[in-house]
Amino acid sequence: MLAKEILERKRDGCEITGDEIRFIVRGVTDGSIPDYQISAWLMAVVCRGMTETETAVLTECMLDSGRRLQPCSSRPRVDKHSTGGLGDKTSLILAPLLACFDLDVPMLSGRGLGITGGTLDKLEAYPGYRCDLRQDEIDRQLNQIGCVITGTTPDIAPADRRLYALRDVTGTVPSVGLITGSIMSKKLAESLNALVLDVKWGSGAFMQTLTGARELERSLVRTGQRMGVAMSSLITDMNQPLGRMVGNACEVNEAVEVLRGQGPADVLEVTLALAAKLLIATGRADSESNARKLLEQSLAQGKPLDRYRAMIEAQGGEFKDQLPTGKPTEVVADSDGWISAVSGRDLGNAIIAMGGGRRQQGDAIDHRAGIEMLVRIGDCVERGQPLLRVLFEGPTDQRKAIADQVRASISMGLERPEVPKLIV
Amino acid sequence: MLAKEILERKRDGCEITGDEIRFIVRGVTDGSIPDYQISAWLMAVVCRGMTETETAVLTECMLDSGRRLQPCSSRPRVDKHSTGGLGDKTSLILAPLLACFDLDVPMLSGRGLGITGGTLDKLEAYPGYRCDLRQDEIDRQLNQIGCVITGTTPDIAPADRRLYALRDVTGTVPSVGLITGSIMSKKLAESLNALVLDVKWGSGAFMQTLTGARELERSLVRTGQRMGVAMSSLITDMNQPLGRMVGNACEVNEAVEVLRGQGPADVLEVTLALAAKLLIATGRADSESNARKLLEQSLAQGKPLDRYRAMIEAQGGEFKDQLPTGKPTEVVADSDGWISAVSGRDLGNAIIAMGGGRRQQGDAIDHRAGIEMLVRIGDCVERGQPLLRVLFEGPTDQRKAIADQVRASISMGLERPEVPKLIV
Repeated sequence: MLAKEILERKRDGCEITGDEIRFIVRGVTDGSIPDYQISAWLMAVVCRGMTETETAVLTECMLDSGRRLQPCSSRPRVDKHSTGGLGDKTSLILAPLLACFDLDVPMLSGRGLGITGGTLDKLEAYPGYRCDLRQDEIDRQLNQIGCVITGTTPDIAPADRRLYALRDVTGTVPSVGLITGSIMSKKLAESLNALVLDVKWGSGAFMQTLTGARELERSLVRTGQRMGVAMSSLITDMNQPLGRMVGNACEVNEAVEVLRGQGPADVLEVTLALAAKLLIATGRADSESNARKLLEQSLAQGKPLDRYRAMIEAQGGEFKDQLPTGKPTEVVADSDGWISAVSGRDLGNAIIAMGGGRRQQGDAIDHRAGIEMLVRIGDCVERGQPLLRVLFEGPTDQRKAIADQVRASISMGLERPEVPKLIV
Repeated sequence: MLAKEILERKRDGCEITGDEIRFIVRGVTDGSIPDYQISAWLMAVVCRGMTETETAVLTECMLDSGRRLQPCSSRPRVDKHSTGGLGDKTSLILAPLLACFDLDVPMLSGRGLGITGGTLDKLEAYPGYRCDLRQDEIDRQLNQIGCVITGTTPDIAPADRRLYALRDVTGTVPSVGLITGSIMSKKLAESLNALVLDVKWGSGAFMQTLTGARELERSLVRTGQRMGVAMSSLITDMNQPLGRMVGNACEVNEAVEVLRGQGPADVLEVTLALAAKLLIATGRADSESNARKLLEQSLAQGKPLDRYRAMIEAQGGEFKDQLPTGKPTEVVADSDGWISAVSGRDLGNAIIAMGGGRRQQGDAIDHRAGIEMLVRIGDCVERGQPLLRVLFEGPTDQRKAIADQVRASISMGLERPEVPKLIV
C-alpha cells in the first residue's frame, strides 16, 4: 500500500477503505509515514470530508494505537465531554456528583486550547494538584472516591498526539471527522458504559453555528454508538460565558459554590441536565424529573462537595474554601442600552493577555487572572453601570489596558435582543 | 505573517494575496516553512484551485526564487514547451530549425518522468553529450550555433525543485495552477521573447481530456502573457505516439530523418506548425503559409541538420548518422480488425521495463530500447500482420514477455474508429 495513492483517492473525494485508514494510522503511530504526507492527507480530509464509516474506522484505529484504562470495579463507568467554551466548569461539579450515585467517573481531561479554558488548568489552581496519575493510582482513587480528573497518559491514543500537533499548525483542525476521531479515541480509552456530550455553539465556541454543532453532535454520537457506548447529548449556548466567572481560580470557586447549593442558575441547570442523562443511561433514574430530584437531593445533602474535596486531596491538592483571585477592576457601561452580544474571542484573548491562558504549549499560567461577568445578553443597563470585573494582579496601567480591551467584548443595542436558549 | 493562517484561508477557498504567496515561496526557497505546512498548502491548492492572479504571482515568485539566463545577443530568444507524451521528438528538430532564422533557442529541458520520455535522455544517446552547460557555455554556443539543449541549473527556480519533490509524494501534482507555476517559472528564466506551447491531450498525455488540455493551455498562455512573453499554442493529439518511434536512440534517429527531409508526416507536421508560430511571433514571417514555405525551404537546403550536428558536437556529443537500437522483435495482430486505440501507459511502461525509462530518479538508461509503431489508429489490419517492433537487447524470454505486454497496448475493433485530429 502506498500513502501517496491513498492521498490521491482522498484528494479526488473518494471514500478510502478500512485497510487504508489502518495503514495511515499505523504510519502516524510508528512514524513510518512522514509529516508531509500526513499533513497533505489531513488537508484532503478537511477539504473533501469523511463518511460515517471512515470516521468510525479512524476513531477505532486511533483508539487502538494505544492502550485503554481497564474497568476496576463492577460499577458503570461514565463521563461527560464538552466541546469547550468560556466559563465551562461543569466537569468539576459533575464528576463528584455522579460519583455519589455509585458510578465510576474516570475523567481524562485536557489543558486550555486557544481561547477555551482547560479543566486541568483550573484544578491546578489548588497548590499540589496532580494531573499525571498512573493507571493504578486512578483505579485506587475510583475505588475510594469514585471520581478522578487527570490528564491522558502518553500511551493513550498516541496517534492523536501526532495528528493533533500537525493539525494545529497546518490549518486542518476544523473537520468533523478529525474532531470526532480525536475526541472519541481518547474518551473511548476510558472504557465507558455511558458518555454524555455537551456540544457548545455560538460566538465563544468552536462551532459558531447551530448547524455546525448539530453535525458534530451527530458524528460524535454515531461513532460512540458504533463502539457500544450508551451516548446522549445536549447542545448548549456559548454565545456568552457559562456562569459569572471566566478564568481558572475564580471558576473553581464558582464550581464549589454550586456544589454548596449556591452559584449561578445556568451552571447548575447545564450540570443537572448532563448528569440526568447519565443517571438515566445507567438505570439510576427512570425519567428526567426523577433524575433531577435525586441530583438536587444529593447536592442539598452536601455529599458531592465532600467527594470533590476528597478528590482534590487524593490527587495531592490543598483544598481551600476560596482560592485567591486577582485584584478587581470594574468596567462600566459608557451608554444606556441592551446587552446584545458578548465576544468570546475578546474575553478569551483578554484572559490570555493576563497570563490566565497560554500563547504556546508549556507557558506558565497565573491562576488568579479572571473576569467576572455582571450582565448577560438581554439585560438592560444604564450608563455607568458595572458590566464586568477584571480580576488581575498586574500593574495599574496594564489593568487599565485589559479593562479597555474587555469593554470592547460587550456589544450594546437600542432594542431588546433575542436571548439564546441555554439548552437548545 | 503566519503560514498557518494562509493555509486556513486557502482551505476555505479564499484567494490569497500576493504578499501571502511571496511569503510562502520565500519560505519554500529558504527552508523557513517546514515540509508539512507546504504539503498541506499544496493539497489545499489542488482541492480549492487558484485564480489567474494567484497563478501569475506564484509563477513570478518561483521565477524570482532563482536567477535568469540573460540574453547574450540582439537576436530574439524563443523556445517551445510540450506538456509531454510518447514519441515526442519535436524539440530536437525545432531548435536547430529555428536557429537557422537568426533566433536564439536557449532550450532548458528535462528528463523522462513517469511514462513520458525526456529530451535530455534522448540526446544522451550520443556518447559524451553534456546536459550541464554553464551560463557562459550556453552564451558561447548561442552566439556560434544559435541553439542549445541542456538541463536547468540548480540556481534556476530553486523553489520549483522543492515544490516538485513534495508534490510527487503527496498526490498534489494535478493542479493547473501548480503545473503552470512549475513550467512557466523555468521557461521564463530563459528570458524569452516568444514561447510556443504544445499541449498534448489523450491516453498517452498528462491531460487525458480535451477540456483539461484547454484549461491548462489557457492558464499557461495567460501567465506568460502577463510576464510580457509573446505566447502561442497548439493542442495536439497524444492518443497514440507521435511518429513511428518511441524510445531514446530510435527517436533521435527519427528526428535526424525529419531533418534530412524524410521521416513520418505527423512529426514534420507538428514541428512545422509549432515553428511557424514562432516565426510569426518574431516577425520572420507574416503568415502561416509564408512561414511554412520558409521552413520547408530551409529543411530542403539541409541547414538545420548542419546546425543540429554542430550543437551535438559543441555539447561534447559524438554525432552518428544512425544510433544503435535494440534487436527487433515483431508483434503481429492475432485477428483481423481496425486499430481503435493505443494505450500510452502500456507502451510507456514497456519502455521502462526494458530499461529505456526510469523507475526512480537516478536510474541508468539503456538508450537502445524502443518500440517502432507499424500501425496507427484507423488502420485496418489482417491477422498475422505486424503491428509494431520491440527494439530490445535483453534475453529471448524477456523479449517475448515484453512483446506480449506491448501487444496488449493495441486495441482492435470491428468497426472503423474515429481518428483523432493531429492538431486540434
